[in-house]
Amino acid sequence: MIDHRTLRVALLGAGSVGSQVARLLIERADELEERTGARLELAGIAVRDVDAPRDVALPRELFTTEAHELIVGSDIVIELMGGIEPARTLILDALRSGADVVTGNKALLATHGAEIFDVADQVGASVSYEAAVAAAIPIIRPLKDSLAGDRVDRIFGIVNGTTNYILDRMDKEGAAFDAVLTDAQRLGYAEADPTADVEGHDAAQKAAILASLAFHTNVPLEAVHCEGITGVDADMIENARGAGFVIKLLATCERLPAEGDEPEAISVRVYPALVSREHPLASVHGGNNAVYVEAEAAGPLMFYGAGAGGVQTASAILGDVVSAARRHIAGGVGVGESARGDQPVAPIGRITTRYQITLEVTDEHGVLQTVAGLLAEGGVSVATIEQTLSHDADGASRARLVIGTHRAREQALSDAVARLDASDVVERVVSVLRVEGD
Amino acid sequence: MIDHRTLRVALLGAGSVGSQVARLLIERADELEERTGARLELAGIAVRDVDAPRDVALPRELFTTEAHELIVGSDIVIELMGGIEPARTLILDALRSGADVVTGNKALLATHGAEIFDVADQVGASVSYEAAVAAAIPIIRPLKDSLAGDRVDRIFGIVNGTTNYILDRMDKEGAAFDAVLTDAQRLGYAEADPTADVEGHDAAQKAAILASLAFHTNVPLEAVHCEGITGVDADMIENARGAGFVIKLLATCERLPAEGDEPEAISVRVYPALVSREHPLASVHGGNNAVYVEAEAAGPLMFYGAGAGGVQTASAILGDVVSAARRHIAGGVGVGESARGDQPVAPIGRITTRYQITLEVTDEHGVLQTVAGLLAEGGVSVATIEQTLSHDADGASRARLVIGTHRAREQALSDAVARLDASDVVERVVSVLRVEGD
Repeated sequence: MIDHRTLRVALLGAGSVGSQVARLLIERADELEERTGARLELAGIAVRDVDAPRDVALPRELFTTEAHELIVGSDIVIELMGGIEPARTLILDALRSGADVVTGNKALLATHGAEIFDVADQVGASVSYEAAVAAAIPIIRPLKDSLAGDRVDRIFGIVNGTTNYILDRMDKEGAAFDAVLTDAQRLGYAEADPTADVEGHDAAQKAAILASLAFHTNVPLEAVHCEGITGVDADMIENARGAGFVIKLLATCERLPAEGDEPEAISVRVYPALVSREHPLASVHGGNNAVYVEAEAAGPLMFYGAGAGGVQTASAILGDVVSAARRHIAGGVGVGESARGDQPVAPIGRITTRYQITLEVTDEHGVLQTVAGLLAEGGVSVATIEQTLSHDADGASRARLVIGTHRAREQALSDAVARLDASDVVERVVSVLRVEGD
Repeated sequence: MIDHRTLRVALLGAGSVGSQVARLLIERADELEERTGARLELAGIAVRDVDAPRDVALPRELFTTEAHELIVGSDIVIELMGGIEPARTLILDALRSGADVVTGNKALLATHGAEIFDVADQVGASVSYEAAVAAAIPIIRPLKDSLAGDRVDRIFGIVNGTTNYILDRMDKEGAAFDAVLTDAQRLGYAEADPTADVEGHDAAQKAAILASLAFHTNVPLEAVHCEGITGVDADMIENARGAGFVIKLLATCERLPAEGDEPEAISVRVYPALVSREHPLASVHGGNNAVYVEAEAAGPLMFYGAGAGGVQTASAILGDVVSAARRHIAGGVGVGESARGDQPVAPIGRITTRYQITLEVTDEHGVLQTVAGLLAEGGVSVATIEQTLSHDADGASRARLVIGTHRAREQALSDAVARLDASDVVERVVSVLRVEGD
């Protein structure tokens, strides 16, 4: 056997993912040496509090509060602190000192990705981030490498496990959002402050990362249209089921062709959408994630697996560490990302999809014609319409319409919905949901 | 823009995949240059007959019959001729002349992979073969890189589109194997000589490649246990459905732990197996492929997409070409495969799984006890048993038993089935099917 080099690995952060990464680096040192041709030596773990309790028992002498000192002289720096600072500064310092960086920090990449990749390019180092989207599911590498010779047309994915868990239970049990959220918090599927998940912010960060990579462009987080699932109720899920759909929080990244005066653009958006029960994404249950990719030559592909979890995410981190180690051994500069342009990100009004509109209307003759007419005026054509009738306690009859539209432009649809809302025959616009995955 | 290098690309073969690769290399030259930082110049296409009809119109001056001459001076050689020779010699020559090789040749890799990877290692070149398994679905790269820091425990996949198409139609239509095969041939889903597909040989080659990669070992093709689908009839599919299963041709690669005197080993096998209708693999329809991977840290992952097709497979080839080009630009030697050991491949008798046994038995009192007793004697315990009764034209009553077993070792099971076959109460062993995916 040849004389193997030793590579110095610095770990920043020892939370649920970091502590598993440390454990695996120690326990699998021999295997990792076989895989890479290098001894990966865990030089230390930088944390805020050396004595804080950890998920995994780790040698106390590895811990330090001096992150900057730990980075100096390291070949590979694994950043798992999360948040913007000091993670950003430490990553930039690590790159400038010649280290390759592996990170799972989606918030940082979605906001400061361009800066970090620029510095990496300048110094010939690599930044890997498989763990930043969909935990252990290999999706970054397939987009970056496997599909690099293809042209990605569309991605839609379930990239947030917490919201999928909540929507899945609401779908299975007919339960209310609040009840399921409380239970999810109790079981550890949702955090005490669930805002980032249920408002779609976490999914929006991942959508920005996926779109930037797939379309070779910089997508600022602010350009991602984001709606969460707090407005989804049992009634909407029941309506969806009746029409053959399930509601999923989807991150969608899509190329929009040039149209009239409008240039080619991309759309990056997160919202609860209707997905056909026949679609592979419909059978993604619990906290799992799945990303559906449509590429021009490859056709549709799907990547499925656990969307969270310390040890699952650690698998993705270790995959990136092995690649970085192999690169060190092979020599040569880091193979960076494709050059990124600045494609325009279209406003939500420009997308085209199908919609399901639920209305409460007066129970009068001719209501159907009036509603269909108001939609048609705005260029929205009706594909299906279903009317149900119920009676109030006071005996007044109340009619509900569930309307499925043909494909329409979002701007036309929302204008038409505004007209419906203002109309005398419509008592209330109950919900408007988009259909994805056609 | 920096001054880009030009890389010389040689293409060997212009069949359904090769002609699409040539088209995309020409049509997307600008995009590929952006992705790689190199101008990829298609230097020529080596074919047997320059004037043969092609799927795609390509410049005639690119074609040559002199493959050896074309290789000389090329930076990247794409081999899509198929078969063992002259593909093997040309690939070895290309590597020795310093070129990186991209191939989709599963037959060659399953039989001469070790030789080819050795030569690549010696000269510091790379061999990529994403297209060899499951067409456009990224599965080679995830196993080679993304899961390189993890430990793969098991893979089971639908890796042959033709047999999945046939079994899926038999399942949906209750049709007979021969009828569906004839139709599949008419529609182009099966070849005129369907042997390689329906006998499982194609899937066995892919299983050998997947197992070699996942377990970092050399798996000779002869060590792969292989059964095809020609014995699957409508009755078996109906029985499977009754018990909540669907029949799929699965390629399974699995670690077997050490047991008594037996060392740790791997099992690599292809056969039609029962898969729960709840399992994600059950909803892989038509000619699609899907590979399910269970890794220790990552947990279960699934990769899904088109399993065949010229342009789909071309996507995988181009992904490998882009990676090879980036490597040329970055410098450094090829990052090879992990070093491969020689883990023992266990005989089929050593695997442990659940079984479904269908018997025709005499319609006598005590038959159930006798059958269960014969199974229990061999250490096979019965989980479910279902008896149906039918009457022959001559009035004789005929009983059929469908038995679901608990997990049992294959050797014990086959010994027990032999005892059943010899028993007076059993008129005929109708079928024995393995259950996978638990």
